[in-house]
Amino acid sequence: MIIVMRQDASREAAEDVAKRVEALGLKPNLIFGEERTVVAVIGDDRRKDREKFESCEGVDKVLTILAEYKIASLETKPEPTVIRTHDLVIGGGNFGVIAGPCSVESEEQILASARAVKAAGATGLRGGAFKPRTSPYSFQGMKEEGLKLMAAAREETGLAVVTEVMTPQHVDLVASYADVMQIGARNMQNYHLLQAVGECDKPVMLKRGASATMDEFLLAAEYILDQGNQQVMLCERGIRTFETHTRFTLPLASVAYLKSKTHLPVVIDPSHGTGHSNLVPSMCSASVAVKADGMIVEVHPDPSNAMSDGAQSLTFKVFEATMQECRKIADAIGLTLH
Amino acid sequence: MIIVMRQDASREAAEDVAKRVEALGLKPNLIFGEERTVVAVIGDDRRKDREKFESCEGVDKVLTILAEYKIASLETKPEPTVIRTHDLVIGGGNFGVIAGPCSVESEEQILASARAVKAAGATGLRGGAFKPRTSPYSFQGMKEEGLKLMAAAREETGLAVVTEVMTPQHVDLVASYADVMQIGARNMQNYHLLQAVGECDKPVMLKRGASATMDEFLLAAEYILDQGNQQVMLCERGIRTFETHTRFTLPLASVAYLKSKTHLPVVIDPSHGTGHSNLVPSMCSASVAVKADGMIVEVHPDPSNAMSDGAQSLTFKVFEATMQECRKIADAIGLTLH
Amino acid sequence: MIIVMRQDASREAAEDVAKRVEALGLKPNLIFGEERTVVAVIGDDRRKDREKFESCEGVDKVLTILAEYKIASLETKPEPTVIRTHDLVIGGGNFGVIAGPCSVESEEQILASARAVKAAGATGLRGGAFKPRTSPYSFQGMKEEGLKLMAAAREETGLAVVTEVMTPQHVDLVASYADVMQIGARNMQNYHLLQAVGECDKPVMLKRGASATMDEFLLAAEYILDQGNQQVMLCERGIRTFETHTRFTLPLASVAYLKSKTHLPVVIDPSHGTGHSNLVPSMCSASVAVKADGMIVEVHPDPSNAMSDGAQSLTFKVFEATMQECRKIADAIGLTLH
Amino acid sequence: MIIVMRQDASREAAEDVAKRVEALGLKPNLIFGEERTVVAVIGDDRRKDREKFESCEGVDKVLTILAEYKIASLETKPEPTVIRTHDLVIGGGNFGVIAGPCSVESEEQILASARAVKAAGATGLRGGAFKPRTSPYSFQGMKEEGLKLMAAAREETGLAVVTEVMTPQHVDLVASYADVMQIGARNMQNYHLLQAVGECDKPVMLKRGASATMDEFLLAAEYILDQGNQQVMLCERGIRTFETHTRFTLPLASVAYLKSKTHLPVVIDPSHGTGHSNLVPSMCSASVAVKADGMIVEVHPDPSNAMSDGAQSLTFKVFEATMQECRKIADAIGLTLH
Repeated sequence: MIIVMRQDASREAAEDVAKRVEALGLKPNLIFGEERTVVAVIGDDRRKDREKFESCEGVDKVLTILAEYKIASLETKPEPTVIRTHDLVIGGGNFGVIAGPCSVESEEQILASARAVKAAGATGLRGGAFKPRTSPYSFQGMKEEGLKLMAAAREETGLAVVTEVMTPQHVDLVASYADVMQIGARNMQNYHLLQAVGECDKPVMLKRGASATMDEFLLAAEYILDQGNQQVMLCERGIRTFETHTRFTLPLASVAYLKSKTHLPVVIDPSHGTGHSNLVPSMCSASVAVKADGMIVEVHPDPSNAMSDGAQSLTFKVFEATMQECRKIADAIGLTLH
Repeated sequence: MIIVMRQDASREAAEDVAKRVEALGLKPNLIFGEERTVVAVIGDDRRKDREKFESCEGVDKVLTILAEYKIASLETKPEPTVIRTHDLVIGGGNFGVIAGPCSVESEEQILASARAVKAAGATGLRGGAFKPRTSPYSFQGMKEEGLKLMAAAREETGLAVVTEVMTPQHVDLVASYADVMQIGARNMQNYHLLQAVGECDKPVMLKRGASATMDEFLLAAEYILDQGNQQVMLCERGIRTFETHTRFTLPLASVAYLKSKTHLPVVIDPSHGTGHSNLVPSMCSASVAVKADGMIVEVHPDPSNAMSDGAQSLTFKVFEATMQECRKIADAIGLTLH
Repeated sequence: MIIVMRQDASREAAEDVAKRVEALGLKPNLIFGEERTVVAVIGDDRRKDREKFESCEGVDKVLTILAEYKIASLETKPEPTVIRTHDLVIGGGNFGVIAGPCSVESEEQILASARAVKAAGATGLRGGAFKPRTSPYSFQGMKEEGLKLMAAAREETGLAVVTEVMTPQHVDLVASYADVMQIGARNMQNYHLLQAVGECDKPVMLKRGASATMDEFLLAAEYILDQGNQQVMLCERGIRTFETHTRFTLPLASVAYLKSKTHLPVVIDPSHGTGHSNLVPSMCSASVAVKADGMIVEVHPDPSNAMSDGAQSLTFKVFEATMQECRKIADAIGLTLH
Repeated sequence: MIIVMRQDASREAAEDVAKRVEALGLKPNLIFGEERTVVAVIGDDRRKDREKFESCEGVDKVLTILAEYKIASLETKPEPTVIRTHDLVIGGGNFGVIAGPCSVESEEQILASARAVKAAGATGLRGGAFKPRTSPYSFQGMKEEGLKLMAAAREETGLAVVTEVMTPQHVDLVASYADVMQIGARNMQNYHLLQAVGECDKPVMLKRGASATMDEFLLAAEYILDQGNQQVMLCERGIRTFETHTRFTLPLASVAYLKSKTHLPVVIDPSHGTGHSNLVPSMCSASVAVKADGMIVEVHPDPSNAMSDGAQSLTFKVFEATMQECRKIADAIGLTLH
């Protein structure tokens, strides 16, 4: 951490800051510049409240050197984490495709979807049984019945089941059916939930909150890792910006950035990231081109009759064409898309 | 809802959309313009998935007429909701002030804070016992011990206790000590938690999520109201924008906007809304000037040694001066600040 | 500037960076931390391209200590700048009110507006003669004819004329009629225009660009100041965020922030900052409460027939009531509102 | 346009709105819903100030059906516009690559860059002679001398010269050297400049403003088209969001969106869109994968000594590798990258 003093701060104020730094067990290094004095702090200040130095007499601002996350850091573990469950492989040069409807709606719907996405090349099946919905009046999911149908679809197709868990009380129930536990964007900072999935032995897909910074995203992953569960994949699903022609803004530069900071695999969600089915296929192609570790795509037998997210779901036919284009790109750049 | 067809859409496509509208029990009204056809939908479409019409052949976009929230709406209940607990009164021309430390740290700290904020004119005491922290390595609060200290401070000062609940399992515990249950910004869309506080008989302060739209904010309130708890106050605490000189951007126009849509009272949080103690006092004054129903302010005996949020906490002295300025403004414009 | 090396950077890389720092005439200070090496740079690096150090071998990131603006800085000139023209006084404890229509539309309209806003207490008259419009098909202003009508209104009422100049070629023309030259938000980084008004002898009102950071805003002012014109006032008119219920998001914390960094006065534009006339009055009150140096408000004899910005213009009656409330607040907190 | 009345609006208010619609030469269609009355307006309301209806008695909000741009619209011209100058071809299945330094710094620098980017496969040469810089103290470009060096580089290599023009007075000068006139993001709404390049006979590359909506972007293009210059390409260069790990956020879904609305070609700028050279290559790949019509990339012989934008410039070697990857993707998906 670097503590920058105000131009009019006295020498005493800087020395007082230095003393407070020492009191935390860290080593201060006073540098008297031409216009400003700064206190450079040596030592691991990750677990200190660094910003409180702002309240000290004469302090202008506090600059951070060390990121707060540690287990998630590439500096801690330089080898990429690879997640494998059933035929789904995410990371280490493997591009895993998870596809299926937003919500499980019926046996027929989920089975038809599972068969179609498997035929097109997906190895994971998505489908919501517990649905976080913006309105209390919207369809909230089939709950355990939906999980059973997902498991049945796995039975038949071999696809890994990826489904959301919304609250700590449901973690055991969901884990008994799911292969990958999804934490939704709205729950990225639901810390009790993060800790609960951190204690379970299933891989976790952590979605980025709509206004989460990269550090907040990695610290949310750190909550899970810190409980002992190392099987975490990050999912970039778009951020909230002033754009209204897309539901969210999908920043694909996140992939290269995250890969420069963490060993955890990164999956893209072009469906929520754009919100309109006509924008999804090209963003699937781009997800492959930037060498993400996978993608999760909403596909529905009849989007115009879907119980949720109809506007952003692909038909079977469009998904198949999209997968063909993705495979061409993967082949061209040496990424394994099973 | 208004469904806008593409310019090249056929008449049949528009008629097919109209049929689907009828199938939902609503009445379609086809309007053939010079360049576009639109289908105006008559009836209450609040509980329908309106966006799925986007997936129909020939549809360009869907425009919404009716907001999805209903119980929260001013159209449903034109009289302002007023919340009273101990001496704290929020709404109906009363400007209630809740103040205190970010976290409860010790008996001495919370008692000193309670006395100081009461002396300055606050009627509610804030203090976190269960703390949502971005990093798993930060101080997570004193938990039940903290709640007990808050209750002791109420005992002595008569201040209403306002404290956060983070997860459904803790609702009963927190409700047994608190006078107002706070839902933090990170949990604004934690629906199981919203439902749980919706079933309890304590007033709820719902903080706006950092990237929540106004409709999402009011729908989150609707989750609580829909469970039967009508004692809900909204808290504007700032949104995430590109600004970095403030922690969040605090949009005070929210007050007039919300008051044109809902009967629920609106409280401002200038501490989180700015993130820097030197910016807090003027935003407190502005909160009074826009006729919010109250404010919640972080105050600490020694901000530079606070265990959390030191950078944005006011000292007792600055808080007292801030309250004096607020009172002058309240008096000038006819708002009751006790 | 602080140059942070990557954890895996070699000592040679840090020393190479230090040599490059010396080559710029600055003094490097190498600090070897437990995990990272940083190079603290001593000297005035304001006029160097600091970010290019990012391209050096082994560098992780570059942190800035000194703001790039200098003439605008409070460190350079601690006394507040006060701008006076005709009866309009902005700054130094004076809250100046500029009001009038978005566009000058006719002699009758501008004269009626001038009389009404003067009666309500404004000392400046706004009115666009050259109008920047998003669409090429919208009304583009009455041009010089509009300027003449503004001057006639000044003749009768004594109000100072505030009007926009859009391009360098028009600076002399506009300056021959205007008392304050307005630079619109879209032109905040139109550097040739900034330099042109920097060479003229009229006060300038510089509006913040919709996505400008505070540093960019102050550097735009620096362009004007650097040409010799010291009569610059800053206008916060709202930033673009994800909010759609307001046209822009108006962050009033800008006032306290700017006053901690610059001596230039700060004026608020609640009309563009909200975009809806029902949100304007409370934001006017708040502008006074935060002790801005003035405000600029759109007022029109008949907003529903305005040629531009009808949705955000106040009627004469609402403006008068708004001014009464503002005056009460100004009186209460010791601000001079003439 | 759809004018939505408030729930409590009287029938008379709706009828008054309808009369005002008729007065504009448009046809109103009153629809009385269960909760709200709406006035659907038939006819071309593009050139009307639609929002002023908000100021009419009883009006809640105004919804837009028709986009304001017309010449730029795909509905007006369904065939894609293709831009050709020297060997550079942008659009119609051709992916044109423009590369070179941020600023022209010397004959040696620009010639070396031109040779390198041509060898790697670029057909256009970028290089700033007039540089818009955030700080008045930064290098502002070599001006006409820089244009001459660009022309000399074209002479030798055959690359088309792409360079920025900042102010109307310079349009003739720049046009006498350049093959493509670039309008920078800061000037996207500098309407006098747009009109000036609209009158010249050179192709124009219009960069999206950092906070421009898609409609504002297309309307800025409309200003140019409306003057008679049909050779306009759009450049997505990233938007300002809360993200700080990238300089801007680059939303590649813009390509599919724009192609669904306009015939104008779309070029991506991954350099400004990310701001860090390590993030540029994968976003170049993605630009090809989403089938943009081209890209513009900053390349410098020695980024760590560049006079501007060193942090985001690629070395020759990295650019060459990036082009190889791009070519593989282009080949795989049938895009022509010369």
